[in-house]
Amino acid sequence: MTQLFGIGVGPGDPELVTVKAARLIGTLPVLAHVGADGRPSRARNIVAGLIPASTDEISGDLPMRCAAEAARPVYDELAWRIAQEIETGRPVGFLCEGDPLLYGSFVAILDRLGASVPVTVVPGITSIAAAAARSRHVLALRDEALAILPATAPDHRLREGLAAADSVAILKVGRHLPRIRSLLAEAGLADQAQLLTEIGSAVETIRPLADVTDDRLPYFALILARRPREAR
Amino acid sequence: MTQLFGIGVGPGDPELVTVKAARLIGTLPVLAHVGADGRPSRARNIVAGLIPASTDEISGDLPMRCAAEAARPVYDELAWRIAQEIETGRPVGFLCEGDPLLYGSFVAILDRLGASVPVTVVPGITSIAAAAARSRHVLALRDEALAILPATAPDHRLREGLAAADSVAILKVGRHLPRIRSLLAEAGLADQAQLLTEIGSAVETIRPLADVTDDRLPYFALILARRPREAR
Repeated sequence: MTQLFGIGVGPGDPELVTVKAARLIGTLPVLAHVGADGRPSRARNIVAGLIPASTDEISGDLPMRCAAEAARPVYDELAWRIAQEIETGRPVGFLCEGDPLLYGSFVAILDRLGASVPVTVVPGITSIAAAAARSRHVLALRDEALAILPATAPDHRLREGLAAADSVAILKVGRHLPRIRSLLAEAGLADQAQLLTEIGSAVETIRPLADVTDDRLPYFALILARRPREAR
Repeated sequence: MTQLFGIGVGPGDPELVTVKAARLIGTLPVLAHVGADGRPSRARNIVAGLIPASTDEISGDLPMRCAAEAARPVYDELAWRIAQEIETGRPVGFLCEGDPLLYGSFVAILDRLGASVPVTVVPGITSIAAAAARSRHVLALRDEALAILPATAPDHRLREGLAAADSVAILKVGRHLPRIRSLLAEAGLADQAQLLTEIGSAVETIRPLADVTDDRLPYFALILARRPREAR
């Protein structure tokens, strides 16, 4: 059927794409994706080896990250071009790092086209699951609560989230490391915390947070910490 | 290398297995899994079509769920049999529904063998991501916090978790529905909540929680709810 597919391509390793995503990427006539600052789409890079030469591609280029206002016309135009393709009878797959519905750029397209076009979402492996797998870190067991917290949230929300959870994954750490470090210490989680960067790549790092002295971290740095059972 | 693989096989749809999991399942000489109450392993069922006839299988049978004491000797014996295989030079894949490190039975094996045997974990699509995909439910955007809460946790922990989060996924709802319903109402999340059962199967249901009048729900029923932006 002619429709839009929101396709999660996982955290970076092309083998961590689902069989369903791989099949769709290999057969859909049109694939769409967004890059940023003139750089090619990271999602497209992950699955580049699966895209046939005959596939048509539609790409948007986002200005500097976090500038929501500036991103709007880029998504407007991309959604319009996707809708045009679907109207001519060609299904379109939108490629998205990780999972399309967890902090995914796909939501911007879904907001614009979800009411007018049939949509199928193909879930993807998150950077959280990939980071846990690489470090053999247990995310949660039994009745434990897991909180997924973006470091960009305000202090009081992070404080509440850390207090309520038995286990946490903190995303988008980047320049927020000093704040996050003291919030984790306050919550009694600093000793358990591990910092992971560039998971699955050749330059991957996995270190106890206590050992990290870097001034700058990549935006995609991630912290995992689970409260010791006796401390709950 | 001779080692143990913890393999996430996803939520139920065989196409939502990763390419890496599919490759390992098709090539490892030995696969291990656990069933419960004499029923075959759900994880094995998901990927049954990928297992060559020549593969050796090791299975444990858990007594009634939640009886942690009774499960211990089953995992002890299964871990021992897995270790024996690895000692004779045969790598073993342990199949696990969803993701191996998020409420996964694999952790019981990792606890027993992680210190003595090389381990690779292959992350899997969670039931949460699959449920969100089926219902096109946005899990989190921008600086929103997502809490993953098992319904089996005590009321005060669920209350804290619901208050601290912008979006929640509540697992293992089963017989806890009445409690969860009132906790969600208290947190101002009842109107947004959707209840999903048997995701991806022929008997899948997706309903607003307000419409659910069932007395009994399957153990694997799941609730998704995201706070409206203006209510944060």
